[in-house]
Amino acid sequence: AEGEESMAAPADKRPISTIVIIIAMQAEALPLVSKFRLSELPDSVFPKGVPWVRYYGIYKDMNINIIWPGKDTVLGVDSVGTISASLAKGACIGDVFLASDVAFHDRRIPIPVFDLYGVGLRQAFSAPNLSKELNLKVGKLSTGDSLDMCPQDEASLTANDATLKDMEGAAVAYVADLLNVPTIFVKAVTDIVDGEKPTAEEFLQNLAAVTAALDQAVTQVVDFIAGKCLSDL
Amino acid sequence: AEGEESMAAPADKRPISTIVIIIAMQAEALPLVSKFRLSELPDSVFPKGVPWVRYYGIYKDMNINIIWPGKDTVLGVDSVGTISASLAKGACIGDVFLASDVAFHDRRIPIPVFDLYGVGLRQAFSAPNLSKELNLKVGKLSTGDSLDMCPQDEASLTANDATLKDMEGAAVAYVADLLNVPTIFVKAVTDIVDGEKPTAEEFLQNLAAVTAALDQAVTQVVDFIAGKCLSDL
Repeated sequence: AEGEESMAAPADKRPISTIVIIIAMQAEALPLVSKFRLSELPDSVFPKGVPWVRYYGIYKDMNINIIWPGKDTVLGVDSVGTISASLAKGACIGDVFLASDVAFHDRRIPIPVFDLYGVGLRQAFSAPNLSKELNLKVGKLSTGDSLDMCPQDEASLTANDATLKDMEGAAVAYVADLLNVPTIFVKAVTDIVDGEKPTAEEFLQNLAAVTAALDQAVTQVVDFIAGKCLSDL
Repeated sequence: AEGEESMAAPADKRPISTIVIIIAMQAEALPLVSKFRLSELPDSVFPKGVPWVRYYGIYKDMNINIIWPGKDTVLGVDSVGTISASLAKGACIGDVFLASDVAFHDRRIPIPVFDLYGVGLRQAFSAPNLSKELNLKVGKLSTGDSLDMCPQDEASLTANDATLKDMEGAAVAYVADLLNVPTIFVKAVTDIVDGEKPTAEEFLQNLAAVTAALDQAVTQVVDFIAGKCLSDL
């Protein structure tokens, strides 16, 4: 996460010193802010007027940042994308996944090459030891800006071979790729895409329980990273 | 567009000193870069790794910036959203519009208040003298990340009462609103949403002609703004 170059060990052999955690829902962010004893920085790195909030602190010798996009300045709701994650096939509410690949399912541009640009497939940083040690499932993640699922989105999600659906992951992956920041995606399942209940209802019912599962998983991930290099993950 | 406060006249009574023009397609941006004699700034205001390009120069005593999001670093295509604009109803290829309102048609979140957040309706800066003087049509603009139009998007576009469709406007409006920057949207029609030809084919056929119409309109808009205050628009 740091831009500086070192004459010493290569980046993937140095202990990881900085973690940036991006969480869309305040309900999910605050338990982690408390757990890691982070403080809201009054001197934000974001432009004036932007509702994004940065929490910062030091935990196990690492700089921990939680970025929460904040509440809509007029409507007062969380600035989603990423409502945790939904599930396309074969898992249970509360399951926690690492995403292996990330892509969009609602950017259809049927012009050669632009079509690939729209899908925006990117790979997450590979962390086989992390997923094995913490017993996390691994699946592909597909991102779109709607909580519902129209047939065209569903076809694209299937083409992406996705197990997980969210509203932000591929956008984070795009920026992280531009800035050359290794990124992992920890996603907890709040609702089943092909389940019987309406998605919105299921999402709201499950949010509290899933938040607990996600916060526990993120804490375990941070604890696992402490003292390790990128190549240890 | 400037953050500083003045003890003199209020902002809307001072001559407009800075214009930022955001254009997604290089083919549309370069004629304007030439027209206003702008230079690409090597010392970008954007983070390292981001493909965005800023062209800058002074024209008629105003700071003119053209921001082009650049080409995808891997695929080499323009970083759209905003493929100019398409048209939903009752206009012709090459018509140039000012957008009065801007909203999304592909962010469906059926949870109270989140639904409004998803639609993200915002008003463009009202410029009645500009539209009258330059004989520009005025219509509502709806934004989505796909070039095609699935039934769910179409229903949302109809609910937005949109005449114009593009792939970026509402996102620009969202950021401009956060940063309190008065914004107008100049959109040229490249293809007809409900026309008979496939959208992609029609778009590519019309791009060159529409680019000329758009560039002419943007030049006229900048010339109109020169020496005027916000309240004159």
